[in-house]
Amino acid sequence: MGRWEPDAQGRMMRAAIELFAERGFDKTTAGDIAERAGVTERTFFRHFADKREVLFAGSDVMERTAYDAITAAPADLTPLDAALTGMVAAGGLLADRHDHAVRRARIVAANPSLHERELLKLAALTEATVSALRGRGVTEPTAGLAAHSAVTVFHVAFARWVSTDEPPGFDDCVADAAAALRELT
Amino acid sequence: MGRWEPDAQGRMMRAAIELFAERGFDKTTAGDIAERAGVTERTFFRHFADKREVLFAGSDVMERTAYDAITAAPADLTPLDAALTGMVAAGGLLADRHDHAVRRARIVAANPSLHERELLKLAALTEATVSALRGRGVTEPTAGLAAHSAVTVFHVAFARWVSTDEPPGFDDCVADAAAALRELT
Repeated sequence: MGRWEPDAQGRMMRAAIELFAERGFDKTTAGDIAERAGVTERTFFRHFADKREVLFAGSDVMERTAYDAITAAPADLTPLDAALTGMVAAGGLLADRHDHAVRRARIVAANPSLHERELLKLAALTEATVSALRGRGVTEPTAGLAAHSAVTVFHVAFARWVSTDEPPGFDDCVADAAAALRELT
Repeated sequence: MGRWEPDAQGRMMRAAIELFAERGFDKTTAGDIAERAGVTERTFFRHFADKREVLFAGSDVMERTAYDAITAAPADLTPLDAALTGMVAAGGLLADRHDHAVRRARIVAANPSLHERELLKLAALTEATVSALRGRGVTEPTAGLAAHSAVTVFHVAFARWVSTDEPPGFDDCVADAAAALRELT
C-alpha cells in the first residue's frame, strides 16, 4: 500500500458494512465499496478476492490468535479448558469493535449466500484448534471433540455478545456458555 | 419416474460413486453418470441439481429422521440424550450401506469443493436438532449447545465408522464418542 492510502483496508471494511446495510448485500458492488472508501477498484481487488471476503477479512488472524493462545496455555489445563483459552483470545480481537461486529452479524444473518462462508470460517477455527491441541499432545477423538465443543461455545458466546447493544465482556459470554455446556453433559 | 426406470436414483448414486472413484470428481460429468446408470441426462437433472448433489441425496431424510426420533424420545431424557437419540436414528439409515458410505467419505475428503456442502449438511442436521429440542420445551442456549454437541458426536462417530472395513455398530460409535465428550467436560 502506498502512503497515500492509510488504513485503506479498514476504510473498505467500514464502507462495505455501511453499504450492505443501506442497499443490501446483493445490490452493492465491489466498485461501490471502493468508491465509498475513496480507493480505486484495483486497490479493492488487491485486498479482497470479492465483496464477500470484506466481511471475513481478519478471520486468519483470529485463527492464529486462537492457535497461539492454546499453544501457550498452562500445561495443566484440560484439553477443553486450553481450547477455551483460545476462544477467549480470538474473541478479544473484537473487544473494541462491538458495533462493527453487530452490524456485520446482521448482514451475514440476512444473506444465506454468506452462511456457507461463515461455516467455513468456523471450520477453519476448529481446525486451528485441533492443530494446537495436537501440539499439546492431545490425541483423537479428544482433540476433535474439545475443538468442536470450544468452537460451539465461541459461536454461542458470540451470538449472545452481538445480540445486545450493551454486551457483557466476551470472556464472560464464553464462561457462561462453557458452564451451560458442562451442565448439559 | 416411469416404470421403465426402477430405482433410477439409486443407480445414479452408485454410478456416481464408481465414476468419482475411477476418474476423479472433477473429471466426471453429469452426462457420464447418466450414461453409466443407463438413464438420459434429462432424467439425471430431474433428480439432482448437479453432480455434487448426488453425494448429498438423502440428507433431508436424515434430518427428518433425527427430528422425528428426538420428538418421540422419552420425556425424561436430558436435552443432550434426546439429541443423541436423533443421531443414532439418523446413523441407522446408513447401517446397511457401509461400503457406499466409506467410498463416499473418501471422495468428499479428497475434494475440497465438497467440504462446504458437507458443512452445510451438518449445519442443517444441527438446525433440525435445535427445532426438535425446542419442540420439547428446551430453551436457548441449551438447545443450541445440545444440538451442536450431538452433531459433533455424530461427526466423530461417523468418521470412526467409515475409517474401517469391519466397523462396530453405528450406535456403539455414537455411545463411545458421547462418553468421550462427557469425560472432556
